[in-house]
Amino acid sequence: MDRVPVSLKEKSYEVLIAAGLMQNSGDLLAEAISPCRAAIITDDNVAPIYLNTVRGSLEAAGFRTSALVLPHGEKTKCLDSVARIYAFLSESGITRSDALIALGGGVVGDTGGFASATWLRGVRYVQIPTSLLAQVDSSVGGKTAIDLPQGKNLAGAFHQPSLVLCDPAALETLPEHYWLDGLGEVVKYGAILDEALFALLEETADGGRKAVMENMIGILHHCVACKAEIVSRDEHDNGERMLLNFGHTLGHAVEVCQHYEGLSHGMAVAAGMTAITRWSEQQGLTEPGTSARLTALLDRLGLPTALPALDRASMLHAMSRDKKKGSSGSRIVILDRIGQSRVMTVQEDCLEMLLAGLR
Amino acid sequence: MDRVPVSLKEKSYEVLIAAGLMQNSGDLLAEAISPCRAAIITDDNVAPIYLNTVRGSLEAAGFRTSALVLPHGEKTKCLDSVARIYAFLSESGITRSDALIALGGGVVGDTGGFASATWLRGVRYVQIPTSLLAQVDSSVGGKTAIDLPQGKNLAGAFHQPSLVLCDPAALETLPEHYWLDGLGEVVKYGAILDEALFALLEETADGGRKAVMENMIGILHHCVACKAEIVSRDEHDNGERMLLNFGHTLGHAVEVCQHYEGLSHGMAVAAGMTAITRWSEQQGLTEPGTSARLTALLDRLGLPTALPALDRASMLHAMSRDKKKGSSGSRIVILDRIGQSRVMTVQEDCLEMLLAGLR
Repeated sequence: MDRVPVSLKEKSYEVLIAAGLMQNSGDLLAEAISPCRAAIITDDNVAPIYLNTVRGSLEAAGFRTSALVLPHGEKTKCLDSVARIYAFLSESGITRSDALIALGGGVVGDTGGFASATWLRGVRYVQIPTSLLAQVDSSVGGKTAIDLPQGKNLAGAFHQPSLVLCDPAALETLPEHYWLDGLGEVVKYGAILDEALFALLEETADGGRKAVMENMIGILHHCVACKAEIVSRDEHDNGERMLLNFGHTLGHAVEVCQHYEGLSHGMAVAAGMTAITRWSEQQGLTEPGTSARLTALLDRLGLPTALPALDRASMLHAMSRDKKKGSSGSRIVILDRIGQSRVMTVQEDCLEMLLAGLR
Repeated sequence: MDRVPVSLKEKSYEVLIAAGLMQNSGDLLAEAISPCRAAIITDDNVAPIYLNTVRGSLEAAGFRTSALVLPHGEKTKCLDSVARIYAFLSESGITRSDALIALGGGVVGDTGGFASATWLRGVRYVQIPTSLLAQVDSSVGGKTAIDLPQGKNLAGAFHQPSLVLCDPAALETLPEHYWLDGLGEVVKYGAILDEALFALLEETADGGRKAVMENMIGILHHCVACKAEIVSRDEHDNGERMLLNFGHTLGHAVEVCQHYEGLSHGMAVAAGMTAITRWSEQQGLTEPGTSARLTALLDRLGLPTALPALDRASMLHAMSRDKKKGSSGSRIVILDRIGQSRVMTVQEDCLEMLLAGLR
């Protein structure tokens, strides 16, 4: 079994990666925290496939479990669900000595994580991510959040999990849409930090999902190790962690302008990465050829490589409302070359020129 | 002006205590954080008296203010109010570089604090407490919370303020009920940690509210210094901070059994302190005479010194559901003598005997 440590002093934890470890989740959890009440949050897509396995394993290891099955989908990631989880945690008798288990994709992890960060001012939680996006991104690093009527991820908390169990076998049952969604973020790690990962993806891309899955343990390791390194240096997203937002300023704006009914998050990020890199290369900020190499890989993996046609004023408005905006301007991430990136602070007129240059 | 530091490494801040400092809040805030957007949360009792003063002072110092006036009272301390505050923060354009100002008593401070802890995963906030309870207790230490249908303070976060402005002039307009509410907690600090404060209260008690008010700067200093010391040693309430719960296990149970429509929090705590101390003295755990001295002071200050007659089974149920309960038992605080206290872990049968011994 592969173990990736996330070093955060007294908040340190491990990400365990192995095919089939869900069957063994109880014993693995017992290594990290002593048996207690474990309240499982999951959704109605995941529950029929994995809930009994996880629950049985936890009970066998001495945990007293209860489970709440939420409806799947982004609409669940809201304050009403948090209220529902609070009621469930109360019924389950969850005290500060107990734990919450988030079994599912990003929606379950983010919403369950937020509830665990705030129930009794914080109880332990464990992530068992079942989607590629959650395994490589949202389950590691302690960012929890819910959406509000005013925007996505606007309320949340930094709250590190006690353990992350990453089982690539769960990806076998993942619908194609969610597969591509996660793949966008996988390419991002290669692009910003890890040329070896990028090269590995280039080698496997033509073999389709099957070839990528054959290398999945290694791919997950690369992604999680990148994230762990960045998070351990910048837990609260004040500096280096912003590198993880490569492609996200444009990607988020696309999602907003399409009212979250167009490209998925990972696909919008893919389009955002190509667009910003084409621009930064034109500006002489990025090594020539980088944009072509990035575009070629995304294309071979079946990911979008161009921004959809959207109203420029709406895109600009969405970009300037980005959560990452400080009083000194918007921060965007650009590549120096594949595997190396940096954060740049730009003013609104620069975003305008960027958008104008894209068409 | 009196300045009490709360030492928490990079989260350290000051509590400023002086009569009339609300008029000067803008300049004082500008010493702690550079001018930014400042979203003020207050209630409809406090707003007519202090909002214009604070807002004018902040604007004059270069802060761009907006204000949300919530209904006063405990019912405001709920998830719906948090949603309302989020909408207000969104309208006000509050980014991670901006700040939220909680102007009011404990309800405003706790609810506004929770919103500031979770908006964009945490923005800075400033407490301007206007009740005695908030000045000596809830505004210092970073505990934020809301009530849920399942119980009080069940959801929340630890989120330290950037500054606390404590203006005893605000207490002049405080209704008697809220005055007594705060006084219970003032006596608590003397009892658990600070015999000099306890003696000061004994000296002034017969002079009524006027005499206590004449010594208020000193009293506030004692209380805030006690709290600052405990919080700096145990920010997340895993040990010593539990001393602050003296009288609270019984007090909370009284509040629950009276459905929060009987004794106020501070009064219930006063009754709880006398009851637990009478018991611990009987058990030989507390210096003889302590209970008599505590009861005499509370009585002279106009605070209750006996638990109301309530159903014993309901009291026991409420006590065993207390948030402070760990898997190893309930933790209660007892006095060694006035000015010195300790935490004891007891099993349910001990709570039962305690309640039985009270009547």
